[in-house]
Amino acid sequence: MNPEPFLQLDRTIHEKGRLAIMSLLAAAPTLLFTEIRDTLRMTDGNATAHLRTLLEAGYVAVTKSLEGGRAATSYALTQTGRRAFADYVGLLEQIVAQTRPPLPSR
Amino acid sequence: MNPEPFLQLDRTIHEKGRLAIMSLLAAAPTLLFTEIRDTLRMTDGNATAHLRTLLEAGYVAVTKSLEGGRAATSYALTQTGRRAFADYVGLLEQIVAQTRPPLPSR
Repeated sequence: MNPEPFLQLDRTIHEKGRLAIMSLLAAAPTLLFTEIRDTLRMTDGNATAHLRTLLEAGYVAVTKSLEGGRAATSYALTQTGRRAFADYVGLLEQIVAQTRPPLPSR
Repeated sequence: MNPEPFLQLDRTIHEKGRLAIMSLLAAAPTLLFTEIRDTLRMTDGNATAHLRTLLEAGYVAVTKSLEGGRAATSYALTQTGRRAFADYVGLLEQIVAQTRPPLPSR
């Protein structure tokens, strides 16, 4: 077995809550904090802590605005975050390919 | 996005050191402690701690023997461990499929 894909997994993304957030943001240009929290059934505190870690890693950007007089906080992947996530998913693919026997070719 | 595969990821297996150990054991009937440690470039302490966690979860079994007068410790997946690992890899496949756009069919 090649240990490299395991050794290279980015710990910031690998934590399952953050993996879920990164996957969600990879599929949308931008998401409200409340959308992230509710889609992933996280508590306020849990979602906030994970997003702070991703912010500190430079993987997400936060935008604060007023929507109809109400404060709205939204998040988006940065270029760095998008690249790191693509690398991470590439490693996952290698891991799945290593651990599953290949399907017979058609 | 469907959050279920993320929520269901088994934390015991998801930690990247243990994921590497489980993957290694899934591909071999049994492995010496030293083979696991050296293949994955872990320290003694790190390999021991992860294997203890997997033992406590019922995912691996340990066998101690004397090989040519020297103590040898080897590990193998249990049925429970094999099933948990198959479930885990199935979830990873769903996550990869969700996060990568499908390739055009040939």
